[in-house]
Amino acid sequence: MEIVERILAGDVRAAARAISLIECEDSLALKVLSEIHRHTGKAYVLGVTGPPGSGKSTLVDSLAQEYRKLGKKVGIIAVDPSSPFTGGAILGDRIRMQRHCTDPDVFIRSMGTRGAMGGLAKGTVGAIKVMDAFGKDVVIVETVGAGQAEVDIIKSAHTIIVVEVPGMGDDIQAIKAGILEIGDIFAVNKADRDGADRAVAHLRSMLELGTEPKDWTPPIIKTVAKDGKGVPELLAKVAEHRAYLEKTGGLRRKEREKAEREFREVLRERLAQYISDKMDKGEFEALVERILRKQVDPYSAADDVLAKLETK
Amino acid sequence: MEIVERILAGDVRAAARAISLIECEDSLALKVLSEIHRHTGKAYVLGVTGPPGSGKSTLVDSLAQEYRKLGKKVGIIAVDPSSPFTGGAILGDRIRMQRHCTDPDVFIRSMGTRGAMGGLAKGTVGAIKVMDAFGKDVVIVETVGAGQAEVDIIKSAHTIIVVEVPGMGDDIQAIKAGILEIGDIFAVNKADRDGADRAVAHLRSMLELGTEPKDWTPPIIKTVAKDGKGVPELLAKVAEHRAYLEKTGGLRRKEREKAEREFREVLRERLAQYISDKMDKGEFEALVERILRKQVDPYSAADDVLAKLETK
Repeated sequence: MEIVERILAGDVRAAARAISLIECEDSLALKVLSEIHRHTGKAYVLGVTGPPGSGKSTLVDSLAQEYRKLGKKVGIIAVDPSSPFTGGAILGDRIRMQRHCTDPDVFIRSMGTRGAMGGLAKGTVGAIKVMDAFGKDVVIVETVGAGQAEVDIIKSAHTIIVVEVPGMGDDIQAIKAGILEIGDIFAVNKADRDGADRAVAHLRSMLELGTEPKDWTPPIIKTVAKDGKGVPELLAKVAEHRAYLEKTGGLRRKEREKAEREFREVLRERLAQYISDKMDKGEFEALVERILRKQVDPYSAADDVLAKLETK
Repeated sequence: MEIVERILAGDVRAAARAISLIECEDSLALKVLSEIHRHTGKAYVLGVTGPPGSGKSTLVDSLAQEYRKLGKKVGIIAVDPSSPFTGGAILGDRIRMQRHCTDPDVFIRSMGTRGAMGGLAKGTVGAIKVMDAFGKDVVIVETVGAGQAEVDIIKSAHTIIVVEVPGMGDDIQAIKAGILEIGDIFAVNKADRDGADRAVAHLRSMLELGTEPKDWTPPIIKTVAKDGKGVPELLAKVAEHRAYLEKTGGLRRKEREKAEREFREVLRERLAQYISDKMDKGEFEALVERILRKQVDPYSAADDVLAKLETK
């Protein structure tokens, strides 16, 4: 496929187009993903998550700059599920990122929620693969750490940085409980504010509450993303975590889990497609109508469909 | 099934047990859901969503009390996805709800995120069905209006109330953009605070930004949930919205969409089960390994599986 060859040759417009195809669930997207698969697996995927207002985007920006200093090519995927119905990303964030606009080796893409549940996670996995095949050494995925969808997205990352800020209220603490468990590294951003040390101590004590002792103790780094302070230290911790994963076989395990997850997802979709090919529209509609009228329950209806499939 | 008969007879322990089975994805749950299906469709489902700290739970509490005054039996499902890994609900919220503890006609259940993505939405749909079959006239589903999962959950509601409070920051505004579009009724809660009228005006102007003109103009009600102020007015608006849906065929359309969504979901799951029954574990593992080694891409692997299915 021409578009795949162009992605592999480093054509930014081809890569951008491929991600758009994925996001719109265009049928061509599957062909692209199918063909690029064997060219993936080289990029290191970094997840950055945290509540709104924690300065995540600025931190991602600074991380990208640090990686550029090391000569690494960087891809950024900013996931913004705040508007599930319009699919719009927050304009301000995107404008801010124009700092990298003139650097061809930083490729930024924002993704909003489209289509059905799971669409965003699936789309993000696809976008990561495109950036990987496109030759990015590091792909940074930025999400708001709130719902289940974001947690599923961040699972695609090799290393997860959770961003906090000093002095957040109790409501935020509740949200934090869920993402504490997924953080490999913690950044207390806006650390020039009052209460940074208290926030670090609080995080530390919450982390120590975790029941199972782990080989990897998540470090907590104070950062001031807007000035780049603490960002080299953060990068060093990412490198340490990567080395740890490589040494312990964790990297391979993560890759395997990712492959299995993706395969299961694809299988499920193909099956759904298969069944709707086998079943005519009228038949499906009639079944929905019968379910609605309580003449049959959805479970028995599904069993009937499968039984028919067997004999076709 | 005994448990189903007991639910239909109004045995609260049977209903609670059924919801637990659903939440744990016990195989018995499917049988229960299958059998109760024809006893559902009577309850009116009210969705209440809003950001943390907006006083949603107190408002739900007051709504339940108002419905009790009208002699309605009420079920409450408090969905709390804040901790996707531990499945825990915020204890404080649940304790607060003990106000209804001695009233057998208010049945409260909280649900945390369990298992895979979609698990929470699926579990909530199941819990609504149990409460419906159990004889509740009104089922109130309470969610934090953030991620995609919550939006999917709230879609099960006939009428959606979006709760806001005066003086929330810009970060919250961003989240709001997504849920503005799903609100049938808006409640500006904690309206005894400064800025309540400004919040109403702000909401009104944001709602008017919506491009497509609708038959139903979402009303905005000021409430002080802790004192029950504005709650009867809110209930009156729910009744108005219900009448509107009944008149315009919207209720039937919503029911049909729900039936179709549920059927598709069940079909997908049954298919996944079907394929893993047909495929031995070794075969699946071998394919994942080949995907991992980039010897095959997940799409081609899925096609192979389906092709084999055809000839079996």
